[in-house]
Amino acid sequence: MSPASDLLAATLAQSDFHPRLPQQRRLYEAAKTAIHQNLLAAGKRLPSSRDLARDLGVARNTVIAAFGQLAAEGYVSSTLGSGTYVADLQELSAGMRRGAGAPGAPADAARAAAPLSRRGAELTAFAAGPRYEIQPFAPGDADFSSFPFKLWQRLQNRVWREARADLLDYGQSGGYLPLRQAITEYLRISRSVKVSVEQVMITAGTQQSLDLCAQLLADVGSTAWVEDPCYWGARRVFQARDLLLRPITVDRHGMALDAADLATEPRLIYVTPSHQYPTGAVMSLARRRELLDVAVRKNAWILEDDYDSEFRYTGRPLAALQGLDTDNRVVYMGTFSKVLYPGIKVGYIVVPPALIAPFKSALYDLQRPGQLMVQAALADFIALGHFTTHVRKIRQIYGARRELLRRTLAAQLGSQLGHGVAISSEESGLHLVVELPERTDDVALAALAAESGIQVKALSTYYLAPPLRRGLLVGYAYVTAEKISYYGKLLAAVIQSGVRR
Amino acid sequence: MSPASDLLAATLAQSDFHPRLPQQRRLYEAAKTAIHQNLLAAGKRLPSSRDLARDLGVARNTVIAAFGQLAAEGYVSSTLGSGTYVADLQELSAGMRRGAGAPGAPADAARAAAPLSRRGAELTAFAAGPRYEIQPFAPGDADFSSFPFKLWQRLQNRVWREARADLLDYGQSGGYLPLRQAITEYLRISRSVKVSVEQVMITAGTQQSLDLCAQLLADVGSTAWVEDPCYWGARRVFQARDLLLRPITVDRHGMALDAADLATEPRLIYVTPSHQYPTGAVMSLARRRELLDVAVRKNAWILEDDYDSEFRYTGRPLAALQGLDTDNRVVYMGTFSKVLYPGIKVGYIVVPPALIAPFKSALYDLQRPGQLMVQAALADFIALGHFTTHVRKIRQIYGARRELLRRTLAAQLGSQLGHGVAISSEESGLHLVVELPERTDDVALAALAAESGIQVKALSTYYLAPPLRRGLLVGYAYVTAEKISYYGKLLAAVIQSGVRR
Repeated sequence: MSPASDLLAATLAQSDFHPRLPQQRRLYEAAKTAIHQNLLAAGKRLPSSRDLARDLGVARNTVIAAFGQLAAEGYVSSTLGSGTYVADLQELSAGMRRGAGAPGAPADAARAAAPLSRRGAELTAFAAGPRYEIQPFAPGDADFSSFPFKLWQRLQNRVWREARADLLDYGQSGGYLPLRQAITEYLRISRSVKVSVEQVMITAGTQQSLDLCAQLLADVGSTAWVEDPCYWGARRVFQARDLLLRPITVDRHGMALDAADLATEPRLIYVTPSHQYPTGAVMSLARRRELLDVAVRKNAWILEDDYDSEFRYTGRPLAALQGLDTDNRVVYMGTFSKVLYPGIKVGYIVVPPALIAPFKSALYDLQRPGQLMVQAALADFIALGHFTTHVRKIRQIYGARRELLRRTLAAQLGSQLGHGVAISSEESGLHLVVELPERTDDVALAALAAESGIQVKALSTYYLAPPLRRGLLVGYAYVTAEKISYYGKLLAAVIQSGVRR
Repeated sequence: MSPASDLLAATLAQSDFHPRLPQQRRLYEAAKTAIHQNLLAAGKRLPSSRDLARDLGVARNTVIAAFGQLAAEGYVSSTLGSGTYVADLQELSAGMRRGAGAPGAPADAARAAAPLSRRGAELTAFAAGPRYEIQPFAPGDADFSSFPFKLWQRLQNRVWREARADLLDYGQSGGYLPLRQAITEYLRISRSVKVSVEQVMITAGTQQSLDLCAQLLADVGSTAWVEDPCYWGARRVFQARDLLLRPITVDRHGMALDAADLATEPRLIYVTPSHQYPTGAVMSLARRRELLDVAVRKNAWILEDDYDSEFRYTGRPLAALQGLDTDNRVVYMGTFSKVLYPGIKVGYIVVPPALIAPFKSALYDLQRPGQLMVQAALADFIALGHFTTHVRKIRQIYGARRELLRRTLAAQLGSQLGHGVAISSEESGLHLVVELPERTDDVALAALAAESGIQVKALSTYYLAPPLRRGLLVGYAYVTAEKISYYGKLLAAVIQSGVRR
């Protein structure tokens, strides 16, 4: 056995090393830890996947999947025929790079055996996994049980009764016009977006909006600045389009660029200024202005994902970054999945005038959008005022649940608060963050919570690069008051047991 | 002016050189012709886009778009800072390559000025353009005016009345189970597909099915064998995922591999065996067996797109290629867009057992499928027998229209038939092909037909590489009998005027 195999085998043999994670994830964590602790030094060659699988007594696919993720996150790099090497972390933290070390190069040795391509292995290495709505506290989920089924059905029927054959076709011109008009008006009034109806296009949701931008505005190997921590779905889409992700630290005022960041040349800058995902930070005006300046100087596009701006529980909604943009560098996007229901698959994108024609044609050519009947019902839903009513209703429900969850946790955590434990205080979104002391294993803590039927997520898993913060994302939007009281106490107990004081 | 500018200017000055095409397309055609005729020799450096735009008196964006398309199709290649060079056609025909000559390389000089990335410029250079249902003969369009609105509305209402909140969520496990069961049964009986329900996943249509395969089964720079001519939508998806397309000649028996093809290493092989798009050829059993053998030998995946198998007007439907596969190399896909209505955005994919887990997780992570309410209504539609009834009904309508169109054209073209003009005779699909003599400018002919309000498409535009065949794709499915008689005669007259005997 090679020293590297020995080292990893020893780590994996520790029964308290992420005991509840699947084997490939444990291997990934073991290697990552060893690299961070410099036990596997930069430039060191790792054993082949075949040898390592034999040495550790695991399936080779397990090793390949773990290596794939390490490569995707830049911890190791593979070169055809010459093996897998530990990356230089100094260099890494100066510019996170994806495993696409050799785009266009033929497969590595692993490929012949694996059913998936390198890209496929990376993209599926760690599935987001199914969600369990019945279990409390999964972040990001909305309460669509409060959706007005009957009203919606009535609006749909009205559309279907007209039996308009043209609404059965693909959407060819950026979406159903009355819906685009309704969105234009809404964004102008509620979000201070500077927009004319031609700039608005209907997509099948935010993933599809982002994918369109990644295709049309970036090339293989282009750099995308992403917030760190970052929305998982956006990261996936960019990686699937073979962009290089450069993680940018997020602090209390949003994305915080340093000199090393500014030395790189991004094509895309992905931000969630109204409510950073997942930390909840609101980007300050100074940072917004700076970012717009940088985008002009770098000739880059800012992708503003305003995914949950409807959920602010106190004060007025914040204006969108797009409204400050005088140079047409911002592509703005939103979705109806959070406010109405996820499966509706209707989002929108607002592009600067220069991008209207190419986006419109690419939207049709590449995605063939449809569901015009749904779009027509939605247009009526907005135009008749139901959208505003529904938002007001769920905002009230969610705000109350947020408050209850915070109070429950605070009462229970008591003296621990302030000793490295904090509960996020911004008044918006569908989840809150319980920040944990630096050395807490938040992944293990989330796994422990899962044993009590609680689906929180570890903050550290949203990070692309160190230094990362530890914490738990706690979703409350779809959890009833009784469950919040009951499971909130349970969760606090789990946190108390896991945090060494 | 450089000799290359002179040459292109002279071609563009000819008033009969594609007079009805937009300028960028004319420039593209002029350069392509010159390259084919060796007037622009391999290795020759082209003028910069700036110089050429000035020399020709056209906008620089026009030149950039034309260059982008030439690069995308491998006629020229660009290297950073050193200009654009004519590719070697020998080499080209031995292995068509995309413009991604330097994946990962920073932008070319054009980028600073252009809003789109190289990939974006290529993808939007030639938009498919909007379709005009009111005008006859656009190929590929189905007659969704015969869609049973009332019945569908009733089924939808039944689903919505149940107010199942779980159907409002994203589809997390490959789609609505009863729909997957209904599709499994249908494919087993009607298409001889070997399938269990776990292998079936619901996608938002064929573009999305193909995109998933391109992401998970191929890498940037991987080779995909595609039929030549080829379905435009598939080509776009593969290009957008930065695959290298190798066009494979299609003859009367489908995809015809030669020794040079067999010397390449495909990861994906995209075929339409039941009814080749757009020629209509049915892949012979010998070719099917050969292709399956090759796929095993090459460790490649066959993507079988069975897009319109429901439309066979005589005899029994042909069995799917997938049914012959004993090595699990075929990914099979179909869609409800052609039989029901395009905007329904429901397709399906059948993957070999080894791909079930990664495809299921990637489908959720990357595409976030939704519309479970629609899936539920569709499941009922199939289970209650309405699907079979509807297919039978439109098959009858389309078959009659096909026959009428063929008779109308044959009567009118009369003596021209046999002199290089032929009407495709296979009994399936939504369009037929009028084959034209070798030197006919089918693009000009289609443009001429458009002046009479006829939306046929030129066969040559579906080709990636020479030698290409000339012809017109004539769609009939949504055209009424009266219109077929009237416009059929008009179209025949256009063909007569355009074909030199």
